[in-house]
Amino acid sequence: MTMSIHSVPDRELVLSTGRAHPELAAAVAAQLQLDLLPMTAYDFANSETYVRYTESIRGKDIFLFQSGSTPVNQSLMELLLMLDAAKRASAGNVTAVVPFMPYARQDKKSRGREPISARLVADLLTTAGADRVMSIDLHTSQIQGFFDIPVDHLGAMPVLVDYVRGRVDIENVAVVSPDAGRIKVAEQWAASLGGCPLAFVHKTRDVTQPNKSHANRIVGDVAGRDAVLVDDLIDTGGTICEATKVILDAGAKSVTVAATHGVLSLPAPQRLHESGAREVVITDTLPISASQRFQELTVLPIAPMMARAIKQVFDGGSVTSLFDGSMLTGLA
Amino acid sequence: MTMSIHSVPDRELVLSTGRAHPELAAAVAAQLQLDLLPMTAYDFANSETYVRYTESIRGKDIFLFQSGSTPVNQSLMELLLMLDAAKRASAGNVTAVVPFMPYARQDKKSRGREPISARLVADLLTTAGADRVMSIDLHTSQIQGFFDIPVDHLGAMPVLVDYVRGRVDIENVAVVSPDAGRIKVAEQWAASLGGCPLAFVHKTRDVTQPNKSHANRIVGDVAGRDAVLVDDLIDTGGTICEATKVILDAGAKSVTVAATHGVLSLPAPQRLHESGAREVVITDTLPISASQRFQELTVLPIAPMMARAIKQVFDGGSVTSLFDGSMLTGLA
Amino acid sequence: MTMSIHSVPDRELVLSTGRAHPELAAAVAAQLQLDLLPMTAYDFANSETYVRYTESIRGKDIFLFQSGSTPVNQSLMELLLMLDAAKRASAGNVTAVVPFMPYARQDKKSRGREPISARLVADLLTTAGADRVMSIDLHTSQIQGFFDIPVDHLGAMPVLVDYVRGRVDIENVAVVSPDAGRIKVAEQWAASLGGCPLAFVHKTRDVTQPNKSHANRIVGDVAGRDAVLVDDLIDTGGTICEATKVILDAGAKSVTVAATHGVLSLPAPQRLHESGAREVVITDTLPISASQRFQELTVLPIAPMMARAIKQVFDGGSVTSLFDGSMLTGLA
Amino acid sequence: MTMSIHSVPDRELVLSTGRAHPELAAAVAAQLQLDLLPMTAYDFANSETYVRYTESIRGKDIFLFQSGSTPVNQSLMELLLMLDAAKRASAGNVTAVVPFMPYARQDKKSRGREPISARLVADLLTTAGADRVMSIDLHTSQIQGFFDIPVDHLGAMPVLVDYVRGRVDIENVAVVSPDAGRIKVAEQWAASLGGCPLAFVHKTRDVTQPNKSHANRIVGDVAGRDAVLVDDLIDTGGTICEATKVILDAGAKSVTVAATHGVLSLPAPQRLHESGAREVVITDTLPISASQRFQELTVLPIAPMMARAIKQVFDGGSVTSLFDGSMLTGLA
Amino acid sequence: MTMSIHSVPDRELVLSTGRAHPELAAAVAAQLQLDLLPMTAYDFANSETYVRYTESIRGKDIFLFQSGSTPVNQSLMELLLMLDAAKRASAGNVTAVVPFMPYARQDKKSRGREPISARLVADLLTTAGADRVMSIDLHTSQIQGFFDIPVDHLGAMPVLVDYVRGRVDIENVAVVSPDAGRIKVAEQWAASLGGCPLAFVHKTRDVTQPNKSHANRIVGDVAGRDAVLVDDLIDTGGTICEATKVILDAGAKSVTVAATHGVLSLPAPQRLHESGAREVVITDTLPISASQRFQELTVLPIAPMMARAIKQVFDGGSVTSLFDGSMLTGLA
Amino acid sequence: MTMSIHSVPDRELVLSTGRAHPELAAAVAAQLQLDLLPMTAYDFANSETYVRYTESIRGKDIFLFQSGSTPVNQSLMELLLMLDAAKRASAGNVTAVVPFMPYARQDKKSRGREPISARLVADLLTTAGADRVMSIDLHTSQIQGFFDIPVDHLGAMPVLVDYVRGRVDIENVAVVSPDAGRIKVAEQWAASLGGCPLAFVHKTRDVTQPNKSHANRIVGDVAGRDAVLVDDLIDTGGTICEATKVILDAGAKSVTVAATHGVLSLPAPQRLHESGAREVVITDTLPISASQRFQELTVLPIAPMMARAIKQVFDGGSVTSLFDGSMLTGLA
Repeated sequence: MTMSIHSVPDRELVLSTGRAHPELAAAVAAQLQLDLLPMTAYDFANSETYVRYTESIRGKDIFLFQSGSTPVNQSLMELLLMLDAAKRASAGNVTAVVPFMPYARQDKKSRGREPISARLVADLLTTAGADRVMSIDLHTSQIQGFFDIPVDHLGAMPVLVDYVRGRVDIENVAVVSPDAGRIKVAEQWAASLGGCPLAFVHKTRDVTQPNKSHANRIVGDVAGRDAVLVDDLIDTGGTICEATKVILDAGAKSVTVAATHGVLSLPAPQRLHESGAREVVITDTLPISASQRFQELTVLPIAPMMARAIKQVFDGGSVTSLFDGSMLTGLA
Repeated sequence: MTMSIHSVPDRELVLSTGRAHPELAAAVAAQLQLDLLPMTAYDFANSETYVRYTESIRGKDIFLFQSGSTPVNQSLMELLLMLDAAKRASAGNVTAVVPFMPYARQDKKSRGREPISARLVADLLTTAGADRVMSIDLHTSQIQGFFDIPVDHLGAMPVLVDYVRGRVDIENVAVVSPDAGRIKVAEQWAASLGGCPLAFVHKTRDVTQPNKSHANRIVGDVAGRDAVLVDDLIDTGGTICEATKVILDAGAKSVTVAATHGVLSLPAPQRLHESGAREVVITDTLPISASQRFQELTVLPIAPMMARAIKQVFDGGSVTSLFDGSMLTGLA
Repeated sequence: MTMSIHSVPDRELVLSTGRAHPELAAAVAAQLQLDLLPMTAYDFANSETYVRYTESIRGKDIFLFQSGSTPVNQSLMELLLMLDAAKRASAGNVTAVVPFMPYARQDKKSRGREPISARLVADLLTTAGADRVMSIDLHTSQIQGFFDIPVDHLGAMPVLVDYVRGRVDIENVAVVSPDAGRIKVAEQWAASLGGCPLAFVHKTRDVTQPNKSHANRIVGDVAGRDAVLVDDLIDTGGTICEATKVILDAGAKSVTVAATHGVLSLPAPQRLHESGAREVVITDTLPISASQRFQELTVLPIAPMMARAIKQVFDGGSVTSLFDGSMLTGLA
Repeated sequence: MTMSIHSVPDRELVLSTGRAHPELAAAVAAQLQLDLLPMTAYDFANSETYVRYTESIRGKDIFLFQSGSTPVNQSLMELLLMLDAAKRASAGNVTAVVPFMPYARQDKKSRGREPISARLVADLLTTAGADRVMSIDLHTSQIQGFFDIPVDHLGAMPVLVDYVRGRVDIENVAVVSPDAGRIKVAEQWAASLGGCPLAFVHKTRDVTQPNKSHANRIVGDVAGRDAVLVDDLIDTGGTICEATKVILDAGAKSVTVAATHGVLSLPAPQRLHESGAREVVITDTLPISASQRFQELTVLPIAPMMARAIKQVFDGGSVTSLFDGSMLTGLA
Repeated sequence: MTMSIHSVPDRELVLSTGRAHPELAAAVAAQLQLDLLPMTAYDFANSETYVRYTESIRGKDIFLFQSGSTPVNQSLMELLLMLDAAKRASAGNVTAVVPFMPYARQDKKSRGREPISARLVADLLTTAGADRVMSIDLHTSQIQGFFDIPVDHLGAMPVLVDYVRGRVDIENVAVVSPDAGRIKVAEQWAASLGGCPLAFVHKTRDVTQPNKSHANRIVGDVAGRDAVLVDDLIDTGGTICEATKVILDAGAKSVTVAATHGVLSLPAPQRLHESGAREVVITDTLPISASQRFQELTVLPIAPMMARAIKQVFDGGSVTSLFDGSMLTGLA
Repeated sequence: MTMSIHSVPDRELVLSTGRAHPELAAAVAAQLQLDLLPMTAYDFANSETYVRYTESIRGKDIFLFQSGSTPVNQSLMELLLMLDAAKRASAGNVTAVVPFMPYARQDKKSRGREPISARLVADLLTTAGADRVMSIDLHTSQIQGFFDIPVDHLGAMPVLVDYVRGRVDIENVAVVSPDAGRIKVAEQWAASLGGCPLAFVHKTRDVTQPNKSHANRIVGDVAGRDAVLVDDLIDTGGTICEATKVILDAGAKSVTVAATHGVLSLPAPQRLHESGAREVVITDTLPISASQRFQELTVLPIAPMMARAIKQVFDGGSVTSLFDGSMLTGLA
């Protein structure tokens, strides 16, 4: 007799998804020529959530898709339950794939006695059992540091820039940030559009009109140019629409809005439709319902890029190389 | 000069509440002749939750009320944010007061590849910053062991028994468990009602009726007796109503239903109203809306007991002694 | 030159055992056609325990057998030392195989200021270095949630049911729980014996005999039937023997006792022998010494089932499927 | 006899300091009319560091001062040793007071396979034994979220603004950010100077001069104004001096540089002296040696503000209130 | 109404003890004029241990006495259960008082694939709930570093030296270490006896006697002197008795054995009695049964020193000062 | 379609090094016929350190070389940053290779209120991301227990003994320890040199010379012998040189100094050169600069042994076997 049983290990990659954005998971799976591993998910009468994998995942490398869709707390809790179930079912390596990271905007204490919700979410994911996280365009790059597990931080800018480049007069374009806090991203856009001019909207007290305490004014030159107004996400669209107005008032030829995440809370669709923007370009990191769509909206598919990244992670290759030459950061 | 500044420490007890069941927090505060410490809580357009304490809580012993009300994931996430904010605001000792613990029924793996959601909730509360937990009638006592922080586990049975004792013929009563898994609680009820008979409903395949695969039958004797049907919670009321019918069919004089937590998901109110039960007695560990109320429903206030327990915890006294002579467990 | 050395990994499964129940480990190893990996274990003069693996275990998947045999604290501490040694010797994946989990009955606080010993044991195993646990018929399923590592929770009921089914009149059988707290298991037995009747023993104050404060009475019908009295374990046999008497007094034709774990502390053997039970059926999750055996005792081997489960775990297959159609729970 | 010894607890506040910036600790202590608690600190021949408190700190609330002075790794490791010693000496509550947080600029992965050094530093401080951290103007507010312990994040802006307001023509001032990433802070300055104009320096490829790949251009209007160029820190002064030149070239009347932390690595003093800036205003969160000083440099004392914050923390009051009406954030 | 209830905190010191060495706990309590807080402890039939505090300990500073008495694993597990119960009962601060730390001799890997049992014990105590540890003469000082909680490491040498000094000719004494590994302690003894000569026993291969593989020889000069043979503990007495023989053979006038911990496993009493040693001096950190006593044995009480240390810890004073001028280490 | 992508995993071993001792890493790599994986490392102007791997390390087993070279805090912090970067870059298994462990001499509290710096270093390495540690001749074996990750503890004694054996008269040799605390190592040397005599230097108060408070005297016999003076490291050389003098004064024929780690802080080279020692033998676990070398110094290469150990670790073999028959400990 012998003292041990030998076997050559076999690594298996499987994908599964919660109910937040199953279309995206299916699209990524299709890119990889895979079926999703089936999972049961429903809510009990009192709204508690139940999940269960209906196939064995023992020893498998599982990628669990769940974007931060509305209702956010429901999406997040379902993901936490999926992680707990995967850990207890002896999955080999568990990656939480969260294209739009919920609570990412609450990444600091703006005032005393607030939570730092983005850090809390990072801790909850780790506690529940995530070994690694994959996300796209986190609100600030610092959020990657809220995790003490590896984060594959993908960037949608190549996808967006490729599209937008063909829609504007590249010789006569300006990139605009909707507020002072997002200029860094705008600067990356300006560089990838060939070093074009940069501007931002400055919200300030208008000293010439005493009864009106705030005014937006544009800092930088946009007159006569195709303006590209960039942000990481569009939620209610308030800031974006005000910025669009200021840009057009400043003489821009057109405004194209580009953002990775289309949160599009009410009244964003109506407001954006009426904003004067020529086109609003987003990706499908979040589901876009029929009622969220409007004439000027263009939704670019993010699945091809995610599929390449997942394949690369599984093969042990460099994800950084996928974004070679781009401004993308935080990859390994 | 000297090398240190001395001060006599001053301990302060404050209460604050999330939006899950503010009436209960207010009632407990009133018992203690306190105002609640004010907290801002609202949801952003995309349903992310925001909380902030509007007064300093530095160094204070804070009790944060949040029951597992519907929508449960919303209530839970709000509590986690409250805990994170309290920890980061340098609160002295943070107690999560969760009268009805959400996900407590998912306390084991009934099948492979499920989460153990109640353990996950325990870990989430600890991760977010809870130093101690207070809860009432956890679905199983073992859930206390899911926490590695102290749990003050209160029991509503004294409140319920006191009331029910006056509503039944104490010489001719029987306690009934609605299924095999809850008989231990029924046994405690039987003891506290003077050692009365005990019965339970057994769900089984009925071999005499081939086409009907299940039948409920009562095990134990209830004929001619006032039956007290006991459980820890009433959710959709299905099990309770079926049990009521079986008990009445078995010749019981009346059925009084008693449970700690009134989840009362649809169609519980209508169903219970039509069930034949003489009275349904619960406590207000969860909010009971107008639409959840029905003629036979009696809601007992739980605030006085909770106020006594919180005072005892703050004073460093024994909470066990509050329940002296009762069957209550898990207290210190 | 190159920058890396490549190798195809080779997974190796090895088994080793402490001194608590080496016969069982040997039987499982024989099923897998393996020798046990040798380990030195002895006690110093002052009773401190020493262990050492005498072969390299670097990178190997090691299953460490140690049941909760008497003296329990000795068995447990030896296992903890084995885990620490395995971790420090760079074992690949360490599974604690604990057929009978010690302290499982102390799974809640029955009174204030008690420990929750089963949770403590779970934490000790994790602290010492267990990556996974395998156990059989935990006293309550909730104990699985005391671990934050995967638990493969096997069930001996198929083994016991298969045997008992051939020893009773299956058309005329009743399943009995020895007390109110264990009826859930009895209900599973009743279902797997074809939906037979169910009964339990209710310990109560006997109001007709003032000087005798307690009496056991049976709830449910057993007259004229072959009774199968089921529990997860038999310790001193007190509860089981009293229940046997009550069942026979109630007119049962025979009593067959069935339990997974034969703790059989004194005076169990003598008491069970004289109890009137026709047969007492257990498995060998614990060692059964000659002095613990008695005429009516039948010990079923548990090794075949464990060997299948370990092979399945190592092969990355579903353990759940081993118990398909049975009531077994908690597997992945 | 009795079962317990009672005592009224006495809280004691003590301050101690490493060798990174003892002058600041002494100044804060003086504000609080305290002597520093003495501590031995020296390096062994091979440069290993040794620390020891020479008075008992058992049960005391100790604030350990250590700024991120050069050599940074030496300062940091000394602080970690101080924390370990304090924890093992049974100090009551240990606060790391780190006016300038080292490695704060490495707060994200700019490229793949980098560390997130600021998060690492946060984890090291916690591992070594810090219960709380106090710091001033972290490079980004998100760094507060790298800690899972409370952070009292103080802001030096009130101190700087108070001084600068008296040195510029407040009716004709502009605030300038030296690059796109720091505009948020500039916007806070603009608001606190009465809503004055805002500008930033944009580094871009200059398409008109093929041989010179980069050019800085100013976005926003500064002509004829007193410019206040703001940043959180001045290290080698390269960015600041280039920005000063661009601002003056754009027609500004004067440039006043304001920053919290004066790192002032070589060749900053010479470079700033020759930059054309009228005045360079910093605080003494870091030690400023004679060789780092130059004619235009003004160093404002930060000790009074820190002393007030420490007193407030010890008294359990709100630190937020110290900064009422200012833009300061992250306090509790 | 107000928003908070204030109270002046009251610190309470209580002592409780397991069954390992209750006499010592009682002696310390008597020194402090206290009664021990009562605790129930017994073993179930299958040897599982049960403990429960019978008085409230909520918020109290509790010192739990349990020495590493035989059977060691039983003593240790009982202590772990006491710690878990204390943590869950909301004790304020929990100190494990372990005069003789079990497994302290297994403080390193002497060979591959061994555990480091002393580190494991440190981790188990922390996992179970100890906030602080108090112990006496750990086998090596490095064991203090196995803990990441504060350790108050007391030394019995002052007690032993005081006694021995009066029993030997102080002008003509030599201190001897029984083996090479313990000379550091012997050196401390030599210093505290006025700088007397030092020797040790060297176990070596004797090249002059080929058939006898080992010989003990003394290194250093003891001829004509009163030898004090020192160690931290006496277990079976083998090493001590061999050393005594070698010392006497080398011409010493007498041998006095001094050790802190009297483990005294069989056959130590008989062997020591016959060893030729004039006196064997130990303290009562472990219980000494009647059968362990012999004519030459002197047992010094350790309770007074422990009582002073506990009082000092509770009062927040320096324990180091208790041992001023002695060689004692590791105190704060 | 299928549900999973399969791949046969491929393990890859890569080595990389910080700036503390790149020559050693290169020598080990050469032994393994590998190039080092390139890493960028430099210091910013304010002395903060930056590191980055310039090739993908995803999924690879990486050994990170960094000895505890002067300046120690710089070397250590650089290693911590390398570990953090490796963890975040998804390396498969990260081993910190630290031939000379910094702070190993501060492995206990010699006095109250000191840190236990060696334990702190162990915790820092683990916090930063080390999965395993490899080190050579830790100052005390107990330091291995400061880690809760596996430590491969190699010993240089075979390398040193092989060399020294050929340089002394093996029939007439004595091994000497420079102080009482290091005799255990000397005893191992004596055994491996064939059971030769053993001596040590005892530092004591010299009672015959009242004005001179200390004197070193040798305990044991060295007259007429080749003395081998052994230690784990040589720092300033003070102890070693004093011991050499005492040994020669006691009539030794020659003194050969042997130590694993050549720290050689000033004024060690000069002092050792003049000490009278015939030869000083060390290994190159630390870099030896030209200014540290002197005529009598011999530096033995440690790379071959390390290469064998790394290969063995990667192949999953027993490192213990490499040192078969030697006194080496702590391997698995």
